Amino acid sequence: MRLAVIGAGAVGRSVVELAGEYGHEVVAVADSSSAVVADGTGGRGSGAGGDDAVGVDPDAVVARKAERGIVGDDDPEDALAADYEALVEATPTTLGDAEPGFSHVRTALERDRHAVLANKGPVAERFGDLRAAVDDSDGGIRFEATVGGAIPAVSTVEDIEPGHVTAVRGVLNGTANFILTRMAAEGLDYDHVLAEAQDLGVAEADPSFDVDGTDAALKCVILANVLSFGAVDDPADAREFTLDDADVEGIRDVPGSALRLAAEDGRTVRLIGEATGETVRVAPRLVPENGTLAVSGTQNIVQIETSHAGRLNISGRGAGGPETASAVLGDVGRLE
Amino acid sequence: MRLAVIGAGAVGRSVVELAGEYGHEVVAVADSSSAVVADGTGGRGSGAGGDDAVGVDPDAVVARKAERGIVGDDDPEDALAADYEALVEATPTTLGDAEPGFSHVRTALERDRHAVLANKGPVAERFGDLRAAVDDSDGGIRFEATVGGAIPAVSTVEDIEPGHVTAVRGVLNGTANFILTRMAAEGLDYDHVLAEAQDLGVAEADPSFDVDGTDAALKCVILANVLSFGAVDDPADAREFTLDDADVEGIRDVPGSALRLAAEDGRTVRLIGEATGETVRVAPRLVPENGTLAVSGTQNIVQIETSHAGRLNISGRGAGGPETASAVLGDVGRLE
Repeated sequence: MRLAVIGAGAVGRSVVELAGEYGHEVVAVADSSSAVVADGTGGRGSGAGGDDAVGVDPDAVVARKAERGIVGDDDPEDALAADYEALVEATPTTLGDAEPGFSHVRTALERDRHAVLANKGPVAERFGDLRAAVDDSDGGIRFEATVGGAIPAVSTVEDIEPGHVTAVRGVLNGTANFILTRMAAEGLDYDHVLAEAQDLGVAEADPSFDVDGTDAALKCVILANVLSFGAVDDPADAREFTLDDADVEGIRDVPGSALRLAAEDGRTVRLIGEATGETVRVAPRLVPENGTLAVSGTQNIVQIETSHAGRLNISGRGAGGPETASAVLGDVGRLE
Repeated sequence: MRLAVIGAGAVGRSVVELAGEYGHEVVAVADSSSAVVADGTGGRGSGAGGDDAVGVDPDAVVARKAERGIVGDDDPEDALAADYEALVEATPTTLGDAEPGFSHVRTALERDRHAVLANKGPVAERFGDLRAAVDDSDGGIRFEATVGGAIPAVSTVEDIEPGHVTAVRGVLNGTANFILTRMAAEGLDYDHVLAEAQDLGVAEADPSFDVDGTDAALKCVILANVLSFGAVDDPADAREFTLDDADVEGIRDVPGSALRLAAEDGRTVRLIGEATGETVRVAPRLVPENGTLAVSGTQNIVQIETSHAGRLNISGRGAGGPETASAVLGDVGRLE
């Protein structure tokens, strides 16, 4: 399909770079202040091109962003108006009205195009509005990349059918998990390990989104929406969840002593999020040290409780440009 | 959809019992010598019935099989000729020509109906013939239940796109895994634990299919076929795998001493199967004692190596009537 990639951070750039391997082409890319739109004749503006390709030159776009901080000489609006079949929404997650991401998706749907989200904001905070926009459109939406990175959490829950899923829980934030893993492994305290994580690029300069549990909570809210809307025939009967509905506790107050005490009992501490069709909770929990939920480092795990097939566990890389891009491009394939 | 369930063992009976919960109805059931076909008017032959149901009475069928060893007074051919939309092939796995299962599936496809297999035989031994039959039919086939029970192994590999999957490996036989787990946990030898497994119904009176690795090998052959055929556009270019292509070693010769030695090094032994687009191997292997592949008891795990998203691990219940039936009924939903 022809893709417009909105957002040129790690995920957006990886989608631009990998799209060709999945049989798709990128016809437009936008960041917050600029855009590049392929002109459809094989020309690619500045840079190489030719043959009968109609997309942008992925390497040139990524290089331009790295060197000049922009993706091209067009305006972001030009990307939204381009001739794409699916829009990829990969701008930073925002809460509340989830703008400008929500409007990007709505624009695509109003034009009867598809939208694939890596941005959690619209899916967590405005799920009902998204559903309504889809109902009025010939286009569809998918959002695998919003939960669990490379782990196919959303599509697996959908495949089992949400009516047959009683709960979904897991380790959904790699930054918090890395910190807890290192605290347990080295007997170090939180501040020390946070600094290490920041040096490694695993935690951001402002790590609050990750360590306060907000990121994990947004992912659980999204799962709760999938379970809730999936269990009813009429969307009007579904309960809609937002971040405000989540009961959230992060890892800032987990002392090193708690981990040492846990280890004496063969346990450790992990930040566990859980969603049912009725509740969303994120909190540090004791788990068996060698058990399924005690994934290490930046790994994620999603545990699905089913009505007839027991418990399913899916673990893998929770984040990263290529990992998240593969989830986005997988969704594009599902929409074809 | 309207289903014909061919095979009234544990899986067939569970499909009959659970179909209603998934929104499907069973219009015919057959075992090797008998059948029951709903007459379509709401009558259900002997037993309760009424209202406007057109399917068989699940409880009556299961009870009749338990008490009399047959499912009804019709002939198996009547079930194959019934007015179903999807045929469920749940007869015992047979090798070589994979009959009669292969013919049951071919009959459904020739009638432009769908077929869902729990029977590994046709998918492992005659994948090319199955593909050809599907190409000539308006019906499709799915076979999630043939690999990993409740674990959505096949659909997850399909979703990632086989071209982006480099290998699939795992613990795919719960009987062998249970035996190895108990040998390691209790320091007992193979014959002792096999007897325990047979008492528990985890191993059959003739356990060779499981302990010689044949069952795991068939599952890996199926995965190799999925990878091989999925990586090419023209099926004529795909390499077809059968059980003969698999390099198989079972667990009969794993001595208790090997497990004790492994434990001193923080390892244990598991029967690991691996499939790529080129090879199929099953053998006992040393794995880290608390690592991902060291699932316990009758659990299964499937580990998928991907090109862009690292390694995905999916674990869960590998076998059982309801577990396998949920995989079958999930496939029916995907074919709708």
